[in-house]
Amino acid sequence: MAGSTRAPFTADDYRARMERAARAAADAGLAGLLVAPGPDLVWLTGYAPTAMTERLTLLVLAPGQDPVLVVPTLEAPDAAQATGAPALTLRDWTDGKDPYALAAPLLDRNGRFGISDNAWAMHLLGLQKTLPGTSYASLTEALPMLRAVKDAAELELLAAAGAAADATFEEIRNVPFAGRRESEIAADLSRLLREHGHEQVDFTIVASGPNGANPHHEVGDRVVERGDMVVLDFGGLRAGYGSDTSRTVHVGEPTDEERRVHDLVRQAQEAGFRAVRPGVACQEVDRAARAVIADAGYGEFFIRRTGHGIGVTTHEPPYMIEGEEQPLVPGMCFSVEPGVYLPGRFGVRIEDIVTVTEDGGRRLNTTGREMVIVE
Amino acid sequence: MAGSTRAPFTADDYRARMERAARAAADAGLAGLLVAPGPDLVWLTGYAPTAMTERLTLLVLAPGQDPVLVVPTLEAPDAAQATGAPALTLRDWTDGKDPYALAAPLLDRNGRFGISDNAWAMHLLGLQKTLPGTSYASLTEALPMLRAVKDAAELELLAAAGAAADATFEEIRNVPFAGRRESEIAADLSRLLREHGHEQVDFTIVASGPNGANPHHEVGDRVVERGDMVVLDFGGLRAGYGSDTSRTVHVGEPTDEERRVHDLVRQAQEAGFRAVRPGVACQEVDRAARAVIADAGYGEFFIRRTGHGIGVTTHEPPYMIEGEEQPLVPGMCFSVEPGVYLPGRFGVRIEDIVTVTEDGGRRLNTTGREMVIVE
Repeated sequence: MAGSTRAPFTADDYRARMERAARAAADAGLAGLLVAPGPDLVWLTGYAPTAMTERLTLLVLAPGQDPVLVVPTLEAPDAAQATGAPALTLRDWTDGKDPYALAAPLLDRNGRFGISDNAWAMHLLGLQKTLPGTSYASLTEALPMLRAVKDAAELELLAAAGAAADATFEEIRNVPFAGRRESEIAADLSRLLREHGHEQVDFTIVASGPNGANPHHEVGDRVVERGDMVVLDFGGLRAGYGSDTSRTVHVGEPTDEERRVHDLVRQAQEAGFRAVRPGVACQEVDRAARAVIADAGYGEFFIRRTGHGIGVTTHEPPYMIEGEEQPLVPGMCFSVEPGVYLPGRFGVRIEDIVTVTEDGGRRLNTTGREMVIVE
Repeated sequence: MAGSTRAPFTADDYRARMERAARAAADAGLAGLLVAPGPDLVWLTGYAPTAMTERLTLLVLAPGQDPVLVVPTLEAPDAAQATGAPALTLRDWTDGKDPYALAAPLLDRNGRFGISDNAWAMHLLGLQKTLPGTSYASLTEALPMLRAVKDAAELELLAAAGAAADATFEEIRNVPFAGRRESEIAADLSRLLREHGHEQVDFTIVASGPNGANPHHEVGDRVVERGDMVVLDFGGLRAGYGSDTSRTVHVGEPTDEERRVHDLVRQAQEAGFRAVRPGVACQEVDRAARAVIADAGYGEFFIRRTGHGIGVTTHEPPYMIEGEEQPLVPGMCFSVEPGVYLPGRFGVRIEDIVTVTEDGGRRLNTTGREMVIVE
């Protein structure tokens, strides 16, 4: 990320997002939002500093107040070129000055603010010291759904990222698997994602044989063998928006049990997908997928949540997990990725990104979910 | 950064660093240090998580207590492989559990703690909520010199990084400049730094003609022309330790004024270097370089500090700036990089990394500082 996102948004789009965010803050009883460089700032303004430094950059959004971006003087020319810059006021500060004193007059001295999860602790400490009457909540805790509902342009970008990931899968299924290290196949995935337009690769999981049973295994030096199940889970950012898909392939002919487990996960994924429609709680998507696996007696081997949101990052709210009662809203985008993980033996995971439509769900990954045999 | 640094340190080295840090914390009146993923954690343990996530990873150092690394269960196997892992205890926590409750018993409930500058605000808020009697200071404010004094192995790595940057300069001076975009020359710099062993390129500034007068200009689409001064400032990490050097070259024959300004900056850099010796305050290095430029009537055009520390990052304390009274100590490493910036016309900057020896300073960049003519 540098300078500005490549997304086709206008200053008016960013103005509307900032207004919506300020209203959401007010509705949540907050005096405002304090947004540090990262996904929230990109989404609200299109601005991503070229480097993360110790110098304070902070967007201050408060209801009834024009948005202000506090920015180091040296970085102000760069910030002024962000697409969203016309929708905000820049206030710059030079080295040696106190940036918290500059921000203070913009803040209600006794207000409670939402602050970016990833804002630096040193900046939060600076604000707390300058304004001892203020209090803070992390933005994800205060407004978890801030970026969750995507507009039409965002959905197009997510669909394009999904199509690029699908094109990657259609090519990777034809590379040699047997006799090559997981890390070599992962390098192929990374290259293909970039060839299909990704500017950032976030993960290229290749988990073969017993490694597939460890849902956190990323990639290693294990040499893939004939007879292995191989979980492939890959994604990143394309034009600023995320992809994330998983398919589980088999090297050569699978056993009956391997076919059965793969088919079970496919059915669970289908059940999770079919549960998606407006008004349904997130946890219902998890329950629908989980029930299929539990009913087949494999419940104890599905040890992860069913899904997570995606947008300008590859992991964000909403989460498809037991206990999440947030109702689905048209425009939300998230993964549906049940799996079965058999310790010491193999794993299967199948994952599509799904968006909520007016009356159901639409998959943004469309490659076949049946088991693919590779060589 | 992934898995662990490639530096040749042992678990004992990391144990010693953690003990030293805990003692420094006690000396500064702190109940302990809370270290998040980033340069401090790399330096103290050799551990760098593969990804920065919202899941809490936190090293707790307290005087008289064994070091504990709080880590997400999914990442514990990775953390256990860090070189420093034998010197600490891992305490892992699973999704859905409260990591702050896990950390709380390790902390003095009424203590004041130093916390990494770049720890996430959400984690600081979690700690403050769980332990309302605690208070916090950012680590750089509380212990600015924690990593400032390098040991022999670190100095060797910094010297090797400097030599790689020097080798890069010796090659870049022979590439064509006239008629090519700044961005193309910057790409050459990036490629050369990697060829000479850098695993991470932090900056490749190519600031030609009037762009050289903007000390924050990184690189652009401007086509370099004959008659341009070109500031080159580049560096990154090699084997986990930083390089950072600047040379200003001229495309074709310079004018008398250009020669004079370049020579002035060269003399200022020499004066800054000669001021380096144990016991001298950082600001004296700045003053020595600045006096040369001011005496020649160019004082108003030297608009930056003279230098910054370098180690496992390319910018860190100590800073060579007016007001910094920290005395130099053998083993400190920092840049000496005075410049003259003539708005709308051109800029000159000359930068070497210098380390403090027992009786003076030693340059870790050794390419010639006279003006180089390029084509």
